[in-house]
Amino acid sequence: MENLIDIMQLSTEEIDELVKTGCDIMEHPAEYAHKCDGKILATLFFEPSTRTRLSFESAMLSLGGQVLGFSSAASSSASKGESVADTIRVVSAYCDIIAMRHPKEGAPLVATQHSLVPVINAGDGGHNHPTQTLTDLITIHKEKGHFDNLTIGFCGDLKFGRTVHSLVAAMSRYTGVRFVFVSPEELKLPRYVKEQYVKSKNIPYTQSTCLEEVMPELDILYMTRVQKERFFNEEDYLRLKDSYILTPEKLENAKEDLRILHPLPRVNEISVAVDEDPRACYFKQAQNGRYIRMALIMKLLGIQ
Amino acid sequence: MENLIDIMQLSTEEIDELVKTGCDIMEHPAEYAHKCDGKILATLFFEPSTRTRLSFESAMLSLGGQVLGFSSAASSSASKGESVADTIRVVSAYCDIIAMRHPKEGAPLVATQHSLVPVINAGDGGHNHPTQTLTDLITIHKEKGHFDNLTIGFCGDLKFGRTVHSLVAAMSRYTGVRFVFVSPEELKLPRYVKEQYVKSKNIPYTQSTCLEEVMPELDILYMTRVQKERFFNEEDYLRLKDSYILTPEKLENAKEDLRILHPLPRVNEISVAVDEDPRACYFKQAQNGRYIRMALIMKLLGIQ
Amino acid sequence: MENLIDIMQLSTEEIDELVKTGCDIMEHPAEYAHKCDGKILATLFFEPSTRTRLSFESAMLSLGGQVLGFSSAASSSASKGESVADTIRVVSAYCDIIAMRHPKEGAPLVATQHSLVPVINAGDGGHNHPTQTLTDLITIHKEKGHFDNLTIGFCGDLKFGRTVHSLVAAMSRYTGVRFVFVSPEELKLPRYVKEQYVKSKNIPYTQSTCLEEVMPELDILYMTRVQKERFFNEEDYLRLKDSYILTPEKLENAKEDLRILHPLPRVNEISVAVDEDPRACYFKQAQNGRYIRMALIMKLLGIQ
Repeated sequence: MENLIDIMQLSTEEIDELVKTGCDIMEHPAEYAHKCDGKILATLFFEPSTRTRLSFESAMLSLGGQVLGFSSAASSSASKGESVADTIRVVSAYCDIIAMRHPKEGAPLVATQHSLVPVINAGDGGHNHPTQTLTDLITIHKEKGHFDNLTIGFCGDLKFGRTVHSLVAAMSRYTGVRFVFVSPEELKLPRYVKEQYVKSKNIPYTQSTCLEEVMPELDILYMTRVQKERFFNEEDYLRLKDSYILTPEKLENAKEDLRILHPLPRVNEISVAVDEDPRACYFKQAQNGRYIRMALIMKLLGIQ
Repeated sequence: MENLIDIMQLSTEEIDELVKTGCDIMEHPAEYAHKCDGKILATLFFEPSTRTRLSFESAMLSLGGQVLGFSSAASSSASKGESVADTIRVVSAYCDIIAMRHPKEGAPLVATQHSLVPVINAGDGGHNHPTQTLTDLITIHKEKGHFDNLTIGFCGDLKFGRTVHSLVAAMSRYTGVRFVFVSPEELKLPRYVKEQYVKSKNIPYTQSTCLEEVMPELDILYMTRVQKERFFNEEDYLRLKDSYILTPEKLENAKEDLRILHPLPRVNEISVAVDEDPRACYFKQAQNGRYIRMALIMKLLGIQ
Repeated sequence: MENLIDIMQLSTEEIDELVKTGCDIMEHPAEYAHKCDGKILATLFFEPSTRTRLSFESAMLSLGGQVLGFSSAASSSASKGESVADTIRVVSAYCDIIAMRHPKEGAPLVATQHSLVPVINAGDGGHNHPTQTLTDLITIHKEKGHFDNLTIGFCGDLKFGRTVHSLVAAMSRYTGVRFVFVSPEELKLPRYVKEQYVKSKNIPYTQSTCLEEVMPELDILYMTRVQKERFFNEEDYLRLKDSYILTPEKLENAKEDLRILHPLPRVNEISVAVDEDPRACYFKQAQNGRYIRMALIMKLLGIQ
């Protein structure tokens, strides 16, 4: 039995296969409409996340399967003092596969030790969210046709943004990749991420505090939000925040075939004026998330 | 692509067609059991409303379709500061049709501008709730066989009751219709509704503060609740409230073929002693809501 | 039309039949995968209970049916002041069968008087929870092959534990049964339960405050939780609580073929070290709950 807890569990071959299947589903959805007939997905969201939950549910329903679950801890047995291990042992008897979100890091890994069925980590605290990274990857591949030889910019909160760390890790395995990290000093990529996935692999990278300056080099721009509460003082926040808001002006020197990604939800870090730019890709990205999750569910259930 | 935001978007021909389809579904449900196979309805309820949500979900499931969604804003991304426009752009990629309830007037209309799929307004603040009006209309037609030449009484809070305003508007298009408005002075039909849908169309109408007085004339009695918080002082409320509670006594001079409607939930504005009166129609009305919503979903999805 | 409000409504023949069907479903699930095609279960949980709700939903989905409902009163019309009777009259028009949990004793019985479809009591306050008892029964039968001639120990809170009272009542109808009641003085089986189901039927029984002492006699051990808030003073609670926590040590003199049941959720009344003991049966029991509910839904819908 297989689980997906961390994106790095997947080999590049497995990622290629998932991306290929996801793209095939997009083109021929009817061929997949009954792949999971009679199967049940449990969405166990100990922490609410509408977007992620609905994309999993849509994925399973589009495969002909069914869905049950809960959308917040308040409506789960956790409120009666039950351990995650016990909840999983019981609920895994009611379904064929589990997508689990939990505020505590490592909870989905614990779940795999007690589950009767495959477990997908749908986000655990500030840690892993592998289906978001798969969504990012299928989007890059669909837009660019390949993973190699891309210059990928990450902008915003690179310190706490788990989706950034996972995408850096995943992309670090392809050849000819370059990274550009754009953030305020306070929110730079953590040293351990840089050591493990960038320096030790001799991947060329640049660090900058200015988005406009590096914009012309980028093939992919991965935006994230700079949250006020990450700053030590309001003064710094007010001085810096506008530098990391993407506007049509900041895109003036960007490549024609740049693609802008964002894990969403977006608050104000991308101006709505950018939405109609053909390079804006974040809504397409959210759509892609459904298809890559369909591919993943099939893979973990051993369905071809 | 079509949406339904306001009942007045529908022509009388379209209403006739929906009512006809709804009645046909009631009689031959099996023929419709697979009309929406493979389709997904998203119920996006930014404000809770069990009855409305369940009637939509029941409608879609009875057509062979599937359902996903959320039942309150707390479990939606709205709590993370996302705009309705963004939520809709994303979620509309996960489904084939949306039923949306929102506390803010106009939110469903905004949604239509960003959705990839048809949007049904399932209630927006004190504004529109077109599927309630369709439910009222199918019930009137089913009970009376026609919309023309009916005397329709509206009783209770005619000032704030959005279902009253919509039903007045919808019925104003049929010939031979008469309206009777029964309410305390404080809760009379707003002038703009009366001007637009009654006076300008030369529809005969009566206004009264006494239900018993007008009861003998009515073919349809549409009850609504008189809420305490609508009054300026408790004294007026206490003096008036009993006048607008329907009891078997108040029905003594009513026609044999009167039909009593109520959008529900009812608190105490209709005595439970009235429930068993054959003229009481409000529970049947709630049942009808499922069938007219089935007809509407099919229409908006272009399914025959 | 049939309902299930209290386990004692079922004859022993009906229980045998349900257990037999439940076991048959476990062995041949595919043969039951379309028994409820086109049918809708409404799960109306006015009080949250994930485990029970999900087991009902899993049961219905595994029969090919569909599910709608709510998981807490907050998202129901109850918050608008609607009576249970009205809610049931409306919602029963949207489904084919109802599973209802309510904090108020007797609410599901009231529901049967207003529902258009069969109602299953999924727990009403401290009163009845008949599908838990069916789950207990199918587990006993599956593990032991019969209901007769068993010595059944009940340990923990026998005063307030409704599942204990119902299982005592249900088992009191079989021949050769013996009961062993193990609890602190404060939490003994209520006199009325003992009179009605034990003494008046001349069923042999023992009462004890010491689990180890009676352990060697038991064929079945039904554990329940001793809650701190049940005690008059903390001193008594601290002195007594460990006596009613099941550990591997306390099992040393137990029979080889003892079976340990627990209605779950468990907090700490069974040490996790017991989980891997082959006599521990509580997780299997939870699994069985899905199959007996499938059998029950079919029975109430008249499906064979």
